[in-house]
Amino acid sequence: MTETAPRPTLEAVAARAGVSRATVSRVVNGGQGVREPLVERVRRAVEELGYVPNQAARSLVTKRHDAVAVVIAEPETRVFADPFFALQLRGISKELTAHDSQLVLLLTGGRADHARVGRYLAGGHVDGALVFSLHFDDPLPELAQRAGVPTVFGGRPGWGEGTRSAVYVDSDNRGGARDAVRHLVGLGRGRVAHITGALGQTSAVDRLDGFRDVMVDVDPRLIVEGDFTPAGGERAMRLLLERCPDLDAVFAANDLTASGALRVLRAQGRRVPEDVAVVGFDDMLPVAEQTDPPLTTIRQDIEEMGRLMASLLFRALERRGGGSYRDAGSGVGGGPSSVVLPTTLVRRASA
Amino acid sequence: MTETAPRPTLEAVAARAGVSRATVSRVVNGGQGVREPLVERVRRAVEELGYVPNQAARSLVTKRHDAVAVVIAEPETRVFADPFFALQLRGISKELTAHDSQLVLLLTGGRADHARVGRYLAGGHVDGALVFSLHFDDPLPELAQRAGVPTVFGGRPGWGEGTRSAVYVDSDNRGGARDAVRHLVGLGRGRVAHITGALGQTSAVDRLDGFRDVMVDVDPRLIVEGDFTPAGGERAMRLLLERCPDLDAVFAANDLTASGALRVLRAQGRRVPEDVAVVGFDDMLPVAEQTDPPLTTIRQDIEEMGRLMASLLFRALERRGGGSYRDAGSGVGGGPSSVVLPTTLVRRASA
Repeated sequence: MTETAPRPTLEAVAARAGVSRATVSRVVNGGQGVREPLVERVRRAVEELGYVPNQAARSLVTKRHDAVAVVIAEPETRVFADPFFALQLRGISKELTAHDSQLVLLLTGGRADHARVGRYLAGGHVDGALVFSLHFDDPLPELAQRAGVPTVFGGRPGWGEGTRSAVYVDSDNRGGARDAVRHLVGLGRGRVAHITGALGQTSAVDRLDGFRDVMVDVDPRLIVEGDFTPAGGERAMRLLLERCPDLDAVFAANDLTASGALRVLRAQGRRVPEDVAVVGFDDMLPVAEQTDPPLTTIRQDIEEMGRLMASLLFRALERRGGGSYRDAGSGVGGGPSSVVLPTTLVRRASA
Repeated sequence: MTETAPRPTLEAVAARAGVSRATVSRVVNGGQGVREPLVERVRRAVEELGYVPNQAARSLVTKRHDAVAVVIAEPETRVFADPFFALQLRGISKELTAHDSQLVLLLTGGRADHARVGRYLAGGHVDGALVFSLHFDDPLPELAQRAGVPTVFGGRPGWGEGTRSAVYVDSDNRGGARDAVRHLVGLGRGRVAHITGALGQTSAVDRLDGFRDVMVDVDPRLIVEGDFTPAGGERAMRLLLERCPDLDAVFAANDLTASGALRVLRAQGRRVPEDVAVVGFDDMLPVAEQTDPPLTTIRQDIEEMGRLMASLLFRALERRGGGSYRDAGSGVGGGPSSVVLPTTLVRRASA
């Protein structure tokens, strides 16, 4: 604990500036209707005393917090192990800094903590929320909706009452997956396998759908579920090689999964791309460049997705008018629309 | 934006439960002085309507937020690149979950954002703050003090008005460094170099002091400043080999620095430990086990440091009494004391 001097009060500021409490309060909350010389005197007194307005009281008046919550629906161990989140946060952080809004990252130990996250969102601490890495049965969209907090999602939420009119930013996962598999087929590969992402998330389901769009009537043993991690990629690759030793290509649901698959292929003496061609998804650097061999992959602009999520949120908040973000409706009619960003194939050595 | 139904009001709950507004308010804020059957009726109405109390108004009464801020005084790129922070957050998160308190991570793009962090801390959104990775001239301790928010620091803050009575959790950095250097001397090494950490932080200064405690009258060219990163370790190691090609040991201020130094030593054909023995600091896994050769290092329990910081904060908050955390003084007299955890030498192959 640091030793604290008593906090200067509104009264102390009023006394120092020689004005009424009401005048100080008006200045602190924006200064409307106060003459400039008085505003100046109050500001000087605030400065000299180091007065910090009681934000809880203040926000009852202004309804603004200059803070945005970011909720990542994953345990913090995954948040810190997967560079995807750091990239998205970097994009969000840039946009928030430009708006002088505080990034408030709400960490969750797991699903059991989501009710607590919902309470914080409802608690009048933030102007809006950016929520990503949702799973199908996740209570967060409903909690955010109940909290009355404007929310933009990272990735399409695919279910539930609360998400029908949700605004989200996503990549063209299905189209990107089609490009990946078409590239492999174009190389003359006929036994193309797919290691999926965590199938509780729309991004994984959409990439699987894209795979199936091209590989109609595929041998079902060529599809194995992964979980977007290198360890999941290793497990799935081992299983695939046992089941289908004749496979000649793999489309992995993300680059981390592909990095695990490549390790197993090398350990089992399969040459990449000669024996087995491999394509990932993300173009996550430095991962995609540092695999052996460097990874052919589908690029999505993760940092830009984060920036765009924040930008859509601010646009919605601005439409409601500066002083009363949380009072207005929730962006119904004329609010910002969801955005789906295109993907591109990046060719390196693995396919 | 998700489409939101109008938020149920206190009045709606009162009407549904057939009680007065004041009764609902009392129940929502703890239920003192309300008869049990009435409490039950109100709770049921709250549940049925999905009523969420306006926390900003509520917290003016209860002065509690059930949330703790974590402030890491580093740009988010470093926060996500250095596993040190993930480990400390894991420890903090465990303790917060046990207290059903929300972990609110305040990210800062850099020093320029610290005033905004100070405003959020002062804004009545959290019960307390855990602040780590401070630098000597950092305004955060003073901002936290001004905000009147009970604060525990990770690492000893070494300067400034606001930090004289600060409560902190630290490792015995100086003692650990002495053990590292004594181990190298005990192996018969006479030209022991030191790559420091970022010398704007007490942990780096304390480790340098420990190095000097043993290497009295050391050749000053054997000390090169690093920055706790692998890239910094590489730069410093190159400089050391240019300046002092006869060095036979290196004490690196942390394991990431050591990993960079090991890469340069290998690239320049120096055998470890035969030609140059290397000791790190942290015992950061998997880094320390996966270097080539595996790293002899000084172990500190980073996760436990995080857990302990949170635990000290809760102890201080509890002493103030459940309902009025932020009203009481700041832990003066009988409050929790700072803790310095011991370190241990872990021998692997590099020294």
